[in-house]
Amino acid sequence: MTTRRERANAIRALAMDGVEAANSGHPGMPMGMADIAEVLWGDFLHHNPTNPHWPNRDRFVLSNGHGSMLQYALLHLTGYDLPIGELKRFRQLGSKTAGHPEFHHTPGIETTTGPLGQGLANAVGFAIAEEVLAARFNRPGHDIVDHHTFVFVGDGCLMEGISHEVSSLAGTLKLGKLVAIYDDNGISIDGEVHDWFTDNTAERFRAYGWNVVVGDNDKPVDGHDAEAIKKAISSATSQSDKPSLIICKTIIGFGSPNKEGKESSHGAALGKDEVALARKQLGWEYGPFEIPQTMYDSWSAKKSGADAEKAWNDKFDAYAKAFPELASELKRRLSGELPANWKEGAAAFIKKLQTEGPVVASRKASQMSLDAYGPLLTELIGGSADLAPSNLTIWKGSKNIATGGAEGNYIHYGVREFGMTAISNGIALHGGFIPYDATFLVFSDYARNAVRMSCLIPAHTIHVYTHDSIGLGEDGPTHQPIEHMASLRLIPNNRLWRPADAVESAVSWKMAIERAGNPSCLIFSRQNLKHNPRTDEQLANIEKGGYVLWEPSEKFKAIIIATGSEVGIAVEAAQALGDQGVPVRVVSMPCTEEFDAQPVEYREGVLPSWCRARVAVEAASVDFWFKYVGLDGKVIGMTTFGASAPINDLYEHFGITTPKIVDAVKSVIK
Amino acid sequence: MTTRRERANAIRALAMDGVEAANSGHPGMPMGMADIAEVLWGDFLHHNPTNPHWPNRDRFVLSNGHGSMLQYALLHLTGYDLPIGELKRFRQLGSKTAGHPEFHHTPGIETTTGPLGQGLANAVGFAIAEEVLAARFNRPGHDIVDHHTFVFVGDGCLMEGISHEVSSLAGTLKLGKLVAIYDDNGISIDGEVHDWFTDNTAERFRAYGWNVVVGDNDKPVDGHDAEAIKKAISSATSQSDKPSLIICKTIIGFGSPNKEGKESSHGAALGKDEVALARKQLGWEYGPFEIPQTMYDSWSAKKSGADAEKAWNDKFDAYAKAFPELASELKRRLSGELPANWKEGAAAFIKKLQTEGPVVASRKASQMSLDAYGPLLTELIGGSADLAPSNLTIWKGSKNIATGGAEGNYIHYGVREFGMTAISNGIALHGGFIPYDATFLVFSDYARNAVRMSCLIPAHTIHVYTHDSIGLGEDGPTHQPIEHMASLRLIPNNRLWRPADAVESAVSWKMAIERAGNPSCLIFSRQNLKHNPRTDEQLANIEKGGYVLWEPSEKFKAIIIATGSEVGIAVEAAQALGDQGVPVRVVSMPCTEEFDAQPVEYREGVLPSWCRARVAVEAASVDFWFKYVGLDGKVIGMTTFGASAPINDLYEHFGITTPKIVDAVKSVIK
Repeated sequence: MTTRRERANAIRALAMDGVEAANSGHPGMPMGMADIAEVLWGDFLHHNPTNPHWPNRDRFVLSNGHGSMLQYALLHLTGYDLPIGELKRFRQLGSKTAGHPEFHHTPGIETTTGPLGQGLANAVGFAIAEEVLAARFNRPGHDIVDHHTFVFVGDGCLMEGISHEVSSLAGTLKLGKLVAIYDDNGISIDGEVHDWFTDNTAERFRAYGWNVVVGDNDKPVDGHDAEAIKKAISSATSQSDKPSLIICKTIIGFGSPNKEGKESSHGAALGKDEVALARKQLGWEYGPFEIPQTMYDSWSAKKSGADAEKAWNDKFDAYAKAFPELASELKRRLSGELPANWKEGAAAFIKKLQTEGPVVASRKASQMSLDAYGPLLTELIGGSADLAPSNLTIWKGSKNIATGGAEGNYIHYGVREFGMTAISNGIALHGGFIPYDATFLVFSDYARNAVRMSCLIPAHTIHVYTHDSIGLGEDGPTHQPIEHMASLRLIPNNRLWRPADAVESAVSWKMAIERAGNPSCLIFSRQNLKHNPRTDEQLANIEKGGYVLWEPSEKFKAIIIATGSEVGIAVEAAQALGDQGVPVRVVSMPCTEEFDAQPVEYREGVLPSWCRARVAVEAASVDFWFKYVGLDGKVIGMTTFGASAPINDLYEHFGITTPKIVDAVKSVIK
Repeated sequence: MTTRRERANAIRALAMDGVEAANSGHPGMPMGMADIAEVLWGDFLHHNPTNPHWPNRDRFVLSNGHGSMLQYALLHLTGYDLPIGELKRFRQLGSKTAGHPEFHHTPGIETTTGPLGQGLANAVGFAIAEEVLAARFNRPGHDIVDHHTFVFVGDGCLMEGISHEVSSLAGTLKLGKLVAIYDDNGISIDGEVHDWFTDNTAERFRAYGWNVVVGDNDKPVDGHDAEAIKKAISSATSQSDKPSLIICKTIIGFGSPNKEGKESSHGAALGKDEVALARKQLGWEYGPFEIPQTMYDSWSAKKSGADAEKAWNDKFDAYAKAFPELASELKRRLSGELPANWKEGAAAFIKKLQTEGPVVASRKASQMSLDAYGPLLTELIGGSADLAPSNLTIWKGSKNIATGGAEGNYIHYGVREFGMTAISNGIALHGGFIPYDATFLVFSDYARNAVRMSCLIPAHTIHVYTHDSIGLGEDGPTHQPIEHMASLRLIPNNRLWRPADAVESAVSWKMAIERAGNPSCLIFSRQNLKHNPRTDEQLANIEKGGYVLWEPSEKFKAIIIATGSEVGIAVEAAQALGDQGVPVRVVSMPCTEEFDAQPVEYREGVLPSWCRARVAVEAASVDFWFKYVGLDGKVIGMTTFGASAPINDLYEHFGITTPKIVDAVKSVIK
């Protein structure tokens, strides 16, 4: 009979061995949390190793993702497609066992973690997704969406500001199926935390409205006492009106005689001798990466997982009989497929806008797009970091998830940009939703690493950023983005759209919605933008990210490239130049990354190599644009911070005007 | 006799009038907090309007900076050089009354606020600076450094994650002279906060170890009851063993009959009619921007401020007599002047490194620089976000401020990157210090808007970012920066240094230390870097940000531009090309912004226009470098995220190798 401690020691041994083989990694956390993981995965977690995508599985997130060997050991032992050979290649090129857990890499990993605190935020996203999906699809007697979200967090996660944002929101939203387990080991990289982290974490989370699970006398649960852990998790999962935080006192590097309880076990291989001593102390008699069959048998969740999925499938069949339309809608949403009428509906809306030509701010055009697309897409869920009236993210069908019941699809995130964005990533990864989030472009800074994570994971999230330049006016330089668009474009796998009018705005939303599995940033103006006439071909070319919007009657001698609110003055400049006998082409470039992804023939057609007389215009950092205009071109934009003043004064003051473009074009024509 | 309410109404009237004249701004908060401000500024704040730089003044920070008219009204009424004409030009180009308070713009503004939560963090920085400076310079009977830091915060500030990071740290550090006053008005932009912000804020801050000041029965203090406010502030300032949070219930837009207590008073002009009604309700009989002389007399702090400064000056004279060396050191530090032996000491260290040529990681070279410069600079104070052993930010003279007494100069920030960086800004603004902060380069994302603020304010802070590329190896893509350097370079007024060896590392530290009043980012490698031989001229040219490091004996046909760890392989490639008869120059470009700031002759000397055969090499985003290589050049770098693997495998996998550089150079030579 395999004991619980032996099962936990299998994790410890694999963690030590993996890190030792790589001579790199973090053994301390897996050894410290092994007993907790053993109880959670052995007694509570509903999952099916043979089908990691079973929709109703419990979600497990390792927010302290440096302890990745814990998760790899669990996946391996319970029967996922992660053979021992992969654990031996921990942290090697092309292995399935990267340094930190990566969603796109390894079966059973729900999200990419490592940047501290964001796993907790993702978990809040999973829990929101579960709750909103359940509210929409469950019917009496048919709890078809019904799972928990478990997340491990460390001291680092709880020091990070994002833990405040998302825990505060989770408490307000009463996410009763969210269970966080805190590895309270008192150690961080600088040493014992008492000099820099003295929060009363239990009181802090009670202040957020959480159910805090501790042991007797408000002491932490003993994280090495399986029965105590079991009791704590039971207590957390047996209530559903509040999120739960289980505080477990653990010993980092448990089992390592010379390093346990110390920072030295945290982030480096223990060393051959210490591993041998730890094996002895733990009573683990097997060689490196050696797991006896009895241990595999004890750990395997293949049978129980298959049974659980089978039971759910039967339940789903009954649901599908009783509610065929709901069932088919749920299936479609979980598959990520867009509805059958989507393409047609979107095209019709875009065509209509091109015909009607509304002159509105692109943030308003964004709201019009939501009003048009929202009714087609029940999977659309979104919110803003307390800027709904400015971001214009509430559309006609928006209903607050806190009060909207089955219709809930809007999240009032509060002033929590980073938390919002990482929650969005979690909602996207859960499945069943296309989430959008929103704030002012300048405050994308606050959310920045979560935007990066949406590109890296990758997650199908849509980040809406309004008030996109000095054009926001009086709020001044703290609120005026300069470097933000260029910075966001530099994140690999991102798509940033800065539309020039209502039509391009509608196309950008369409492209973001259709970018399955991958994120986009949509950048909108505060101020009104002119409408641009387009041929059908031009209209179709918007999706290519860059296209010829204005062509002179004579062969052009220069090209102006512009985006968003500057396209209007670029066309004015081209017209003025044309009047002066200088034929100039204008390229609208709403999405440089999409343009870069076009075949060379298309790009050459828009920006032919022979034409080096190029001027780029964007009311933002100039440096980015040299990629397109080269050393012979010029860029009209910002090289300093902005200022507080009305919009027209600012454009004049910073020289982003039609006459300045005219002068620049003349100066680059040889 | 002017009553307290009348004095507060003067603020309200000016706030309404300023916003009305601009037809832009936020009247709600100033009208809501006017009574609190009246008590704080009237009864407690030690300041001298005639000398806003008096070192021992209390610091006042408006973290909810959108309420800027509150602060402008206070500065105007108490006698700062901010005439009524400036208030009339609220939010106009070139006025001293920008949309949000700006440090470099307006006398009496201690820091630039607006991005929510950061003002609170700056205030924590001020309080740390005060405490550490006092510990070093005060002597029994000579409390020469002795002031409070007051900060107003709103709901938005407290929702932001950064409020958690800095309040948690402030509690741990027991910053007893920090007093935060929370404007608990229950309203944010989306409306009444109960759907998104239900924290028990008192309990939350008690969990951080704060002294929470409330009224009877744990209810908030009535923010419109001057006596209650006075009692609360007295209670906060009369203890010194914990930071204090005073929770005040206020009515946003107080006095506006139709808009008070509502979101509609928050962020837009009340409108002419409503302003008239509010004047009536408040009993304010004066016209727009009209303040009777009796009111000015009642508010003026010129006399009391001059007296307070005079008393302090006398105290300082006594101190200077008793402790002449300390007094002169304090004076020097407050003036921002570097010590007399600085230039010589730094030059000697750099020269020594050039001669000895240590082959070390640049993070190690950074620590060696700290060891060399630290003893010369008692103003150096720093820390890391729990990565001291990795960032190598602890030098021989480092002493934890929590335990180091008079020698304290090191801050264990915990895992709080954003909080750390904004605290750093506060420390710099306080005076007497040159602060540095540190984390992995990838986590500069977490701190990003505070880095931006250090450039915008600007503040003399030094941001140390190690583990600067895929060169960090096994931790993988979540930890490998790609776009970060380019993104940081794009922030106006930033200086980013990525040194190629120990010598350039020492120069980068020197440049950052000498960049008075302005920030720098120092980027260091995890891995060892080769030493580069240099002539005296080359050594001197490092400070210019870019210089010729390798010149072939024949006239060069191409230029390789490289930074940091890639300079080594760039030189190898140039040598290989030279052997093949292709003479190539190598430019080391540790700081592009510094290079760009050089005279055109110098830049042309390094990168002559005739040579378009250019290859840039940096293990990071390629896009940035087209600025230097143009459309005819090539960039060797990263276009995707990294991967988890040992360093050499990664450089090979991503093609950042000597042979690839050789091929690229050949391909660009026409």
